[in-house]
Amino acid sequence: MVVVMQEGADETQVGKVIAYLVDLGMDVHRSTGASRVVLGVVGSRSVDTRLVELLDGVHEVLRITEPYKLASRTFRKEDTIITVGDLKIGGDEVIVMAGPCSAENEAQVQQTAAACKRAGAKVLRGGAFKPRSSPYSFQGLGEEGLRLLRDAANDHDMKLVTEVMDISQIEVITRYADIYQVGARNMQNFTLLRELGRTRKPVLLKRGISATIEEWLLSAEYILAGGNTDVILCERGIRTFESFTRNTLDISAIPVVKQLSHLPIFVDPSHGTGRRDKVASMARAAVAAGADGLIIEVHCDPDHAMSDGAQSMFPAQFDRLMAELRIIAPAIGRSICLEPAARRGWAR
Amino acid sequence: MVVVMQEGADETQVGKVIAYLVDLGMDVHRSTGASRVVLGVVGSRSVDTRLVELLDGVHEVLRITEPYKLASRTFRKEDTIITVGDLKIGGDEVIVMAGPCSAENEAQVQQTAAACKRAGAKVLRGGAFKPRSSPYSFQGLGEEGLRLLRDAANDHDMKLVTEVMDISQIEVITRYADIYQVGARNMQNFTLLRELGRTRKPVLLKRGISATIEEWLLSAEYILAGGNTDVILCERGIRTFESFTRNTLDISAIPVVKQLSHLPIFVDPSHGTGRRDKVASMARAAVAAGADGLIIEVHCDPDHAMSDGAQSMFPAQFDRLMAELRIIAPAIGRSICLEPAARRGWAR
Amino acid sequence: MVVVMQEGADETQVGKVIAYLVDLGMDVHRSTGASRVVLGVVGSRSVDTRLVELLDGVHEVLRITEPYKLASRTFRKEDTIITVGDLKIGGDEVIVMAGPCSAENEAQVQQTAAACKRAGAKVLRGGAFKPRSSPYSFQGLGEEGLRLLRDAANDHDMKLVTEVMDISQIEVITRYADIYQVGARNMQNFTLLRELGRTRKPVLLKRGISATIEEWLLSAEYILAGGNTDVILCERGIRTFESFTRNTLDISAIPVVKQLSHLPIFVDPSHGTGRRDKVASMARAAVAAGADGLIIEVHCDPDHAMSDGAQSMFPAQFDRLMAELRIIAPAIGRSICLEPAARRGWAR
Amino acid sequence: MVVVMQEGADETQVGKVIAYLVDLGMDVHRSTGASRVVLGVVGSRSVDTRLVELLDGVHEVLRITEPYKLASRTFRKEDTIITVGDLKIGGDEVIVMAGPCSAENEAQVQQTAAACKRAGAKVLRGGAFKPRSSPYSFQGLGEEGLRLLRDAANDHDMKLVTEVMDISQIEVITRYADIYQVGARNMQNFTLLRELGRTRKPVLLKRGISATIEEWLLSAEYILAGGNTDVILCERGIRTFESFTRNTLDISAIPVVKQLSHLPIFVDPSHGTGRRDKVASMARAAVAAGADGLIIEVHCDPDHAMSDGAQSMFPAQFDRLMAELRIIAPAIGRSICLEPAARRGWAR
Repeated sequence: MVVVMQEGADETQVGKVIAYLVDLGMDVHRSTGASRVVLGVVGSRSVDTRLVELLDGVHEVLRITEPYKLASRTFRKEDTIITVGDLKIGGDEVIVMAGPCSAENEAQVQQTAAACKRAGAKVLRGGAFKPRSSPYSFQGLGEEGLRLLRDAANDHDMKLVTEVMDISQIEVITRYADIYQVGARNMQNFTLLRELGRTRKPVLLKRGISATIEEWLLSAEYILAGGNTDVILCERGIRTFESFTRNTLDISAIPVVKQLSHLPIFVDPSHGTGRRDKVASMARAAVAAGADGLIIEVHCDPDHAMSDGAQSMFPAQFDRLMAELRIIAPAIGRSICLEPAARRGWAR
Repeated sequence: MVVVMQEGADETQVGKVIAYLVDLGMDVHRSTGASRVVLGVVGSRSVDTRLVELLDGVHEVLRITEPYKLASRTFRKEDTIITVGDLKIGGDEVIVMAGPCSAENEAQVQQTAAACKRAGAKVLRGGAFKPRSSPYSFQGLGEEGLRLLRDAANDHDMKLVTEVMDISQIEVITRYADIYQVGARNMQNFTLLRELGRTRKPVLLKRGISATIEEWLLSAEYILAGGNTDVILCERGIRTFESFTRNTLDISAIPVVKQLSHLPIFVDPSHGTGRRDKVASMARAAVAAGADGLIIEVHCDPDHAMSDGAQSMFPAQFDRLMAELRIIAPAIGRSICLEPAARRGWAR
Repeated sequence: MVVVMQEGADETQVGKVIAYLVDLGMDVHRSTGASRVVLGVVGSRSVDTRLVELLDGVHEVLRITEPYKLASRTFRKEDTIITVGDLKIGGDEVIVMAGPCSAENEAQVQQTAAACKRAGAKVLRGGAFKPRSSPYSFQGLGEEGLRLLRDAANDHDMKLVTEVMDISQIEVITRYADIYQVGARNMQNFTLLRELGRTRKPVLLKRGISATIEEWLLSAEYILAGGNTDVILCERGIRTFESFTRNTLDISAIPVVKQLSHLPIFVDPSHGTGRRDKVASMARAAVAAGADGLIIEVHCDPDHAMSDGAQSMFPAQFDRLMAELRIIAPAIGRSICLEPAARRGWAR
Repeated sequence: MVVVMQEGADETQVGKVIAYLVDLGMDVHRSTGASRVVLGVVGSRSVDTRLVELLDGVHEVLRITEPYKLASRTFRKEDTIITVGDLKIGGDEVIVMAGPCSAENEAQVQQTAAACKRAGAKVLRGGAFKPRSSPYSFQGLGEEGLRLLRDAANDHDMKLVTEVMDISQIEVITRYADIYQVGARNMQNFTLLRELGRTRKPVLLKRGISATIEEWLLSAEYILAGGNTDVILCERGIRTFESFTRNTLDISAIPVVKQLSHLPIFVDPSHGTGRRDKVASMARAAVAAGADGLIIEVHCDPDHAMSDGAQSMFPAQFDRLMAELRIIAPAIGRSICLEPAARRGWAR
């Protein structure tokens, strides 16, 4: 912390500020400039900087350390690579997670999973418990949905990611999923984050729609502090004044996170735009900007989806997108693997 | 819903849109203008307007009904007045809730409650379970804190409002508090809202820092739909680009909410500004704009508070603020009651 | 400026940063803490902090001085009081400016001015050159409008404020107006600000809809630096994600500006809300929060106004608002004067 | 316009609304639903929808036409391709404009232009008149700067784009530049836009940092309405709550603009991020998302630039970026041409 005194602050004021800080157990280094006194303050305790700002003669208080530790590049220099069976997240391969918004029935889950796998997705996404902003909307199939998703993931040799909304759901979801997803609305549900920190499966942590990058990394810290080192960050759009798109997908968060943290960062262009005709553009932009992966909504029949059909891609659109991404990835020294089966299909 | 076709959309396109909507069980009224066709669409089912927007020839789709019902003025014309014992919230009297951020120990709770009561607060506020953005901060006293708060409320003839963060806390909080508080971060924790809808105590529902007024009213709808009609809305600042204040307190939400809804609206100037030297200005502004009440952090010794001391008022500041509010309230035909004891104090 | 080195930055890196800064003519004070080196940097030159941030081993660079000088409380402790004839702006009296959006014709200007004066407004507002976001809207009467406004101001013993949009208009406006208004869209039209700095009439400087308070004060600095010390700041709403109101009126800017600057601050609740049924609430809030004045759109017949009728008050609404403000102002030790004539009217 | 009446609005209210609209010369089509009356309103006049909203019994008023015409896809279906000599902007080739923030001296301009050309830039950018938020910063070389830029453009067979800040500069800039640039702060300087509409050189119109896409297209309309059909839109970051980057580059504006308008869209990743280490990521993202071109700050010696050095790329960084973009462009069926000379260089 750096305390900048007002121009003209007198010795009594400076003395009181120093005494206040020393009293809290901090070490204080004083620099006296021509027009101002500046105090460098270090110590192990965290201090509410606003309290210091309210002291007489103080002009401004500046924090000099990030409040997160385990999530920062300072703590760990190399990129974190997360292993889920034979899958590596955060390495050279750009990983694509795809699937329906919600599991609706067996045929829908199976057909969608098959289409996603064929195009090159490695992880199946899909919801069983749906958080909806209106109490009058479809709320998901519950455990039956989890079972359908697990079966489809097994049948198509995919991993499964699904959203956990509440600590009461952790136990059942643990039995079915490979990766927990924490939704944007729960990014600061600290009770949930703490519990997930005690599990040993990766957590895909979506950014809240109004969360700063610092707050997002602090939420990751809650999970890391519990001993679970496998956190995947996921940008999905922030709320701005612009209303043509549902949210403004913050592509620039990718290079920022890469600099501040060692954790992998994914992008969700489906929720980030809210309309399927904008998804491909933003998916390409995310990979070009350096994202470690994508999570995309695909549905075998989006026009009749029970939720979020408007932002779900048709299988053919998703195929084409994956082909475009395979051209882009090498520009930044990365790859997007093609399935052997699909390779044959493309070769024909 | 109103579907606006593109200029030049042909009959086939118009026909397909109508067929799509009729297929969903909707009634469609067609208006053919000089340059465009406009379709008025009514029906009992809720339709994702984005799906219609994606149909060929559609220019734009406009929603014409609010998605909330029970919370709207259309549903109920008169202001809702909530009764908590002898207290009426939402009537002519502006109600002030005050107290510490967290209960820390018996002396702190008692002294603060006494000061708040003396100045005219009718409800004691205080937290026992604290949601903190850093996992390394003070997390609250838990049930012991609830006991201290309840005792102080009883001793000073006040009601008690305290935050519930998770459904697992509802039972214990129900035993101690008169009013549940739902924090900004939980405004869209639908699991929690649904459970509170099944209780029969009032809920003070804070606006999320990036929630639109419509989303806020939809969250109130979750509680109302469960049968609990006693929801108090509470504005506490929205996130904007301006960073001098922690948040931007949206005072204009007061007249907007008064027009859209029959529910009472409170303002929290402490979280809305984040610094005690800005609290009085914003509290006065809120009452002048027509707020039904305030919830303010006061601490007997803010400089040594374990949390949020910087935004907690000193008792003397709070006294002075209450005196100012008593001048302002009559400008809009309202009052702020003075305690008999305090009246004697002021008369001397 | 404070340069915070990364944890683990080595001596070579620290040395290069110091050399870079000394080379720019700065003085550097080094503090070596347990985990980091922190450099305090002072000097007369302004340095782009981002360049220092890009040097190897630098964690963060913090600015410690406001970039504005003449506008700050550090430069001038006492409130600036601006004198326009017998009018004092920034003193104990809350000054109200009122009038139509645009001058349309003589009858409209005269009737509106009479109504504003009777209710207690001291300054007539009105536009002759209108900036409109669509090229197809009414663009104002030009100099003829200025003449009508000046005549009405003289007839009713009021001062006149009107908007200047471009340096080419300064000369003609100088001949008619007492106070220049700079609109929100021109807040960073530095060519215009510089020219107004050379004039000797007060400037009402509206805040840009996405301007930080710091940028706003920097724009004031452009005028002050030219030798014109009479700048009135005017908050008129900032752009946020909330769309129920045209803009979000940032009432909390009032206490913030009062702390950072000695300049008077006004509020424009008409543009801040965009609808006349929200204007009174926000005008009351502004005065309660400590604004030095208001600028309000009033029209003798708003339903037939050529521009902004929806946000213009009826004279009777404005009368009532002024009566409410007279109750509120004393709560913060201020007054709103009543005209002798109006006083007689009210007494009857 | 669609007028949605309140549920329960009576016949008198409906009748008055219809009469009001007919009185304004509009045609009204009435639909009577089970719970509401909806009025479809068409006509040639533009009506302030807020005035209708204020009528008794009106629930909401929805606009159904874009306020811009010439800029919309409805007006012109095919993409606009702008010709500047032998250069085509908006076609298959992605055009890159590059150069220094400001012209500082001959050597700097020449060296930078040479480096930009060698890497594949077709247009030289550079400022002679600088708008700076502080009155104490470097303000540009004026006409001498224009001369240096023009000479360098000629010497390296490039076109020249430079910023025009005020109508008084149009004449001199017309003598030197091929393309006018309108900065973000001037996006709503309607006096300037109108004048540029009378010229016959292309205008690169930057989006204001808080401008909606609709407002941006309306500003383009001002230029188009004057008869100048050559407008290039340029996204350069919007202001949001996130402060790690100077602005949030709104990459999703690219597909949105492509849908709404026929005009080419460029991206400025230098101002959009504010730091050179983020520029390449965002430039790649922009091309991958479908931008028609880029405008990038490059400086032969960024560490000693007189302005914006922190966001200017080194020539070697720019070379590498161009190589990456050449890999990405084909993914969306586009190309980035290599100069014959550069081709030889790369082959060696």
